[in-house]
Amino acid sequence: MDRAIGVIDSGVGGLTVAHELMRQLPNEKIIYIGDTQRCPYGPRPAHEVKRFTMELVRFLMKKNIKMIVVACNTATAFALDDLKKELPIPVIGVIQPGARAAIKSTKNNKIGIIGTEGTIASQAYPEALKKINDHLEVTGLACPLFVPMVEKGKLEGDQAKKVVEETLMPLKKATEIDTLILGCTHYPLLEDTIQAAMGDKIQIISSSEETARETSAILEVNHLNTTNRQPNHHFFMTGDLKQFKAIYESIFKKSLGKLKSAKLEKIAL
Amino acid sequence: MDRAIGVIDSGVGGLTVAHELMRQLPNEKIIYIGDTQRCPYGPRPAHEVKRFTMELVRFLMKKNIKMIVVACNTATAFALDDLKKELPIPVIGVIQPGARAAIKSTKNNKIGIIGTEGTIASQAYPEALKKINDHLEVTGLACPLFVPMVEKGKLEGDQAKKVVEETLMPLKKATEIDTLILGCTHYPLLEDTIQAAMGDKIQIISSSEETARETSAILEVNHLNTTNRQPNHHFFMTGDLKQFKAIYESIFKKSLGKLKSAKLEKIAL
Repeated sequence: MDRAIGVIDSGVGGLTVAHELMRQLPNEKIIYIGDTQRCPYGPRPAHEVKRFTMELVRFLMKKNIKMIVVACNTATAFALDDLKKELPIPVIGVIQPGARAAIKSTKNNKIGIIGTEGTIASQAYPEALKKINDHLEVTGLACPLFVPMVEKGKLEGDQAKKVVEETLMPLKKATEIDTLILGCTHYPLLEDTIQAAMGDKIQIISSSEETARETSAILEVNHLNTTNRQPNHHFFMTGDLKQFKAIYESIFKKSLGKLKSAKLEKIAL
Repeated sequence: MDRAIGVIDSGVGGLTVAHELMRQLPNEKIIYIGDTQRCPYGPRPAHEVKRFTMELVRFLMKKNIKMIVVACNTATAFALDDLKKELPIPVIGVIQPGARAAIKSTKNNKIGIIGTEGTIASQAYPEALKKINDHLEVTGLACPLFVPMVEKGKLEGDQAKKVVEETLMPLKKATEIDTLILGCTHYPLLEDTIQAAMGDKIQIISSSEETARETSAILEVNHLNTTNRQPNHHFFMTGDLKQFKAIYESIFKKSLGKLKSAKLEKIAL
């Protein structure tokens, strides 16, 4: 049985989730679809995000997958509940694992969240957190400069440091949070810079790491772990592959070719 | 719908798991059964541990529970697979969540585990870890003095420090682990002392915290979260209640009376 984990994303940010899945579950095959032609999803209305997400899911459902990871905050916020009702296989988003990890980590019940303007405005993280514990104090901060910076490969250095420090200043000055959720799949690539800006005492939670870890739990509880040993990953993109490859390489600092048995393919939905 | 999370343990160690469940999932009702009359399970043969565990489970299955947490390393090692096959509700043990958290945490793929002699001898942690990633280097160390020390309330101070330091010396000296799993439900109470002995660079994983966090994930994926707000917890013990109360108070540093709406009851299986 060689059923794969399906990963859907609006574009390339979800690659940090795919990367963590490969690291934490090295035996599992990943089939990734990134809607690079229509990204970003952030500014789109809810009904459109739902429709696009459903198209990605329908594509993956023909590929013998055993579970779906929605590796995009916007798609999770707008489409996860519907997917959970409609699909016959387990589905997990990126918001809830980060929320649960933050609840585990916090000692003073004060949690910060950074994300894109869309994610912060959606209130999806505060809602996920307060559904579990309504005594939490939650502070969100939009960081609109971070994604463009990551996509240009600027992860460290003076400029990145300056942008990150200035952006996070209000969160550092005006709150007493002890835990900070990286509520955007691009942000784990800035983790070192963010940790330095916030100081050692703040626990940083990467939604990508946490989502991979909960995927591992859900596979086990549902008896879906593979006995496979040499997975052949497969990446599908709706947009230009050159752009994807460039970003992939800048993100992972290794060429796609070095990824064992990974296939890359452009498709039309 | 006021269905509870059922927690079973050989005795009182599982209270650290119950405590984490209450902290991370403050709306959820807990029904705990501790087999204090027949504990410890560690030295017993597998078939006996299975039979006892099944008796605890049968008791809880009459109590309108929605999920079972096996909050005992020995019972998890010997009975979890059977329970997962036989029960119509989700079941989680304490071994796999700690293993998955360690896999998430490690950067160098070198993981240490401390536990009772029984848990270390059972190889349950190395098996759970290597099932997911067989390139991990795993080192186990039995710490037979820790449980008696915790049960006497000695969690800090010079004597605890000395015992912990001397016990952990081989793990610190002879390995390059970057992550250490507390593979016994009593050990989170020694976490500060263990962290001090191992040094700041070692990431300590508490199975109790991680089990509570994965319970939260499994509830959500299975649409089992409560909308309850003031859960009435219920503790059942097969043995003497006085002993349980004393240990509970020494562990949690607050009297049982202060725990909102908790009932304590001695039962015969």
